[in-house]
Amino acid sequence: MKLLIDRRGNKRLCGGDIVHTDLGVVDLTTTVNGRVKSHLGHEFCVLEPRVLDIYEKMPRAGSLILKKDLGAIIANTGVGTGDIVVDAGAGSGGTAIILGWLVMPTGKVYTYEKREKHAEIARKNIALAGLSDYVEVKLQDIEEGIEENPDVITLDLPEPWKVAQNAHEVLKRGGSIAVYNPYVEQARKGHLALREAGFREVRTIEILEREIEVKAVGTRPKTRMLGHTAYITFGRKY
Amino acid sequence: MKLLIDRRGNKRLCGGDIVHTDLGVVDLTTTVNGRVKSHLGHEFCVLEPRVLDIYEKMPRAGSLILKKDLGAIIANTGVGTGDIVVDAGAGSGGTAIILGWLVMPTGKVYTYEKREKHAEIARKNIALAGLSDYVEVKLQDIEEGIEENPDVITLDLPEPWKVAQNAHEVLKRGGSIAVYNPYVEQARKGHLALREAGFREVRTIEILEREIEVKAVGTRPKTRMLGHTAYITFGRKY
Amino acid sequence: MKLLIDRRGNKRLCGGDIVHTDLGVVDLTTTVNGRVKSHLGHEFCVLEPRVLDIYEKMPRAGSLILKKDLGAIIANTGVGTGDIVVDAGAGSGGTAIILGWLVMPTGKVYTYEKREKHAEIARKNIALAGLSDYVEVKLQDIEEGIEENPDVITLDLPEPWKVAQNAHEVLKRGGSIAVYNPYVEQARKGHLALREAGFREVRTIEILEREIEVKAVGTRPKTRMLGHTAYITFGRKY
Amino acid sequence: MKLLIDRRGNKRLCGGDIVHTDLGVVDLTTTVNGRVKSHLGHEFCVLEPRVLDIYEKMPRAGSLILKKDLGAIIANTGVGTGDIVVDAGAGSGGTAIILGWLVMPTGKVYTYEKREKHAEIARKNIALAGLSDYVEVKLQDIEEGIEENPDVITLDLPEPWKVAQNAHEVLKRGGSIAVYNPYVEQARKGHLALREAGFREVRTIEILEREIEVKAVGTRPKTRMLGHTAYITFGRKY
Repeated sequence: MKLLIDRRGNKRLCGGDIVHTDLGVVDLTTTVNGRVKSHLGHEFCVLEPRVLDIYEKMPRAGSLILKKDLGAIIANTGVGTGDIVVDAGAGSGGTAIILGWLVMPTGKVYTYEKREKHAEIARKNIALAGLSDYVEVKLQDIEEGIEENPDVITLDLPEPWKVAQNAHEVLKRGGSIAVYNPYVEQARKGHLALREAGFREVRTIEILEREIEVKAVGTRPKTRMLGHTAYITFGRKY
Repeated sequence: MKLLIDRRGNKRLCGGDIVHTDLGVVDLTTTVNGRVKSHLGHEFCVLEPRVLDIYEKMPRAGSLILKKDLGAIIANTGVGTGDIVVDAGAGSGGTAIILGWLVMPTGKVYTYEKREKHAEIARKNIALAGLSDYVEVKLQDIEEGIEENPDVITLDLPEPWKVAQNAHEVLKRGGSIAVYNPYVEQARKGHLALREAGFREVRTIEILEREIEVKAVGTRPKTRMLGHTAYITFGRKY
Repeated sequence: MKLLIDRRGNKRLCGGDIVHTDLGVVDLTTTVNGRVKSHLGHEFCVLEPRVLDIYEKMPRAGSLILKKDLGAIIANTGVGTGDIVVDAGAGSGGTAIILGWLVMPTGKVYTYEKREKHAEIARKNIALAGLSDYVEVKLQDIEEGIEENPDVITLDLPEPWKVAQNAHEVLKRGGSIAVYNPYVEQARKGHLALREAGFREVRTIEILEREIEVKAVGTRPKTRMLGHTAYITFGRKY
Repeated sequence: MKLLIDRRGNKRLCGGDIVHTDLGVVDLTTTVNGRVKSHLGHEFCVLEPRVLDIYEKMPRAGSLILKKDLGAIIANTGVGTGDIVVDAGAGSGGTAIILGWLVMPTGKVYTYEKREKHAEIARKNIALAGLSDYVEVKLQDIEEGIEENPDVITLDLPEPWKVAQNAHEVLKRGGSIAVYNPYVEQARKGHLALREAGFREVRTIEILEREIEVKAVGTRPKTRMLGHTAYITFGRKY
């Protein structure tokens, strides 16, 4: 698989040698030094995709967690090589892929998904990312029980409070949980449920990313900004 | 080594069995079920420290990059298992430790540091984190040349623009760079230098983290907030 | 009354000629060109206080609305000369003073306050600001009824939803309401109550002010920032 | 003049009785209780416009200062009834109109504009707002000198530093200046020029407004947000 990038910066993942684009047909076997031209003469860059490219370009069912929030989840849970992670719901598998990429080869991500269709998409995306050995999709409702003893739990569920008690029981001592929810009311209920379940250092945050424009005329934050994605609540088990 | 946490949430890393604290002397050999009491009767939690605990509690020379910014660096460079990373300056070794934890066991972090004293502290901290096989401190000025062909480069230097050209040359195609600087003027100069050096997708951001208070009386962002740490500029080599 | 400012920028309102400060005794009758020296030789600036100085330096019972939020209230209600304003609760009279300063001499502010002690402080502060003809403190609970037909209503009450219906009834067509509350739950309840009462253009905002440091070494937002004061909900009657 | 508001919340200022809209023709003489129907049966609200309505709906040459920033300028300069204000450049007259509305009837705004066309638009807008007695457009370049002794100066100019010295000379003691600029470099240069000119309490800020969505499903900040308009630098003369 290759990542094809046109002059406008548009990217696509390409499984075969011949790619049809709006800038012409590209024959990837004619790539020289990472550059290739379409039959209309437009140049493209050809890259080996990294996991993040697959994350950004793979088929989706629903929206992915943005990098600003993924980063907060990674940095605040301290997830890394060798960790066992429980994730739910899998959705398109995005979060599980990123975490799998961090915990492999000695760790593993178990991502719970009760909707068969989503589980299927997640499995395909995980295969696309080459992570099938390190990320397992479990077609199960996480509310019915967690079967692992993870170091880290990440929840992107509408009602995460239903899982708080069980999450605390199964989590290894010293391990962390991250709960992702768009609404204040969910964040509050999740936050209180984590405290109630016995989690320590329970903390709810939101992350704002501001892009800075560097132009010839001067420097300034961009006029447009993403105002909100979600609140993330963290907790730890001692 | 253990992580000892008192009732106020204060943490310390403990190398030996007997620990002197302001809440009394603790004998770690008397720990039962992860709990231990000081001779004054105060209870402590005892944990196996995770890498993030070491990051937060290890000796420092200067300040560390905060988790909000570390997260952005990780999520935007897509760093993960197997990556070769070049980092500079090492400082206390914090960033290198977090990245080493993510790229191990098949990847490696080379962290450049020209100040002997800092290099020494970094080495000790890396050993403390058990990452000496995966993170190498190089007592060298990165401005004098990069000797690796990394997937990812992370720079926390006062004048990162001096390294931009060389960074682009040595970076693998598809790889990413992240540049961290507190002042707008540095961010601008670094941003322009990355573009000049041939980097694509050059983007400067800042990350704001807002904590939400969940109290009995209601929910609200905290009164106090960290207003700024640094700008981070990302670029990629095609 | 004078405003006395010392070298550190500390300000005080002075009613008499002789002022005792920690930098010595100041005799205001010896002021020359707006400068005066204490008996210890420290120089002070002497100014005629503006209304904003009185707002900032007058005696307080509880906290004042910050300028970032006052500004939003003024700019979003469009309050100005000639407007009749109903304000509650008066607190120390701060908001009423600022609004009185804007609507005078043809408009008037009626500020409701049910706590006798606060009403007293508010009256004194209003007199201090020289606005007694334009701002009237009503020792009444606004929940028991509004007796005016205002152009603008400003509410800083714990339960503003109790006033929403009556506020809509008495407000002039075209007039605006602003409701100030620190907690999300209050903001939500107030927001819904305004909509329910028939207000149009109901909108809840929060204002963040970020200060930029301009130093020799460079420019950057300040490390510390005020994270939150309150949400403000606006509505209009058509 | 009337303000006509359709069901979607769209507003227009109407000088005559017959108004052609995309929802049909409206005859304002048939207004009953502030409601009128178009010949197609669509209902409209009819209001006496307030000054803020005129600000928002008047013809523009270029962009206006947003309410979040206007509010900061008003609240930080403490402008109010009776103040003499010098404003430049007038642009469409928007800032001068809002300030005129606050300082009238005993104060006055002098707004400098060197571009004849803009001065003309500003004059018409000021007349539209009924403020011609309180706001005077001066077809002059403010860089060539300020002829008043104002309490407050507001500058929205590309190179405000050229006016800093003169502004300090003419400003009354105790008076305030506000300088509005989109780029960091301008803000820095303006900030330093104010300090250099002798201004005290020089402070540069930016204002972020975040809107909160109150929906049946929950409460959250809006997905989209305005990321930046401008920096505002304040200073005061002692």
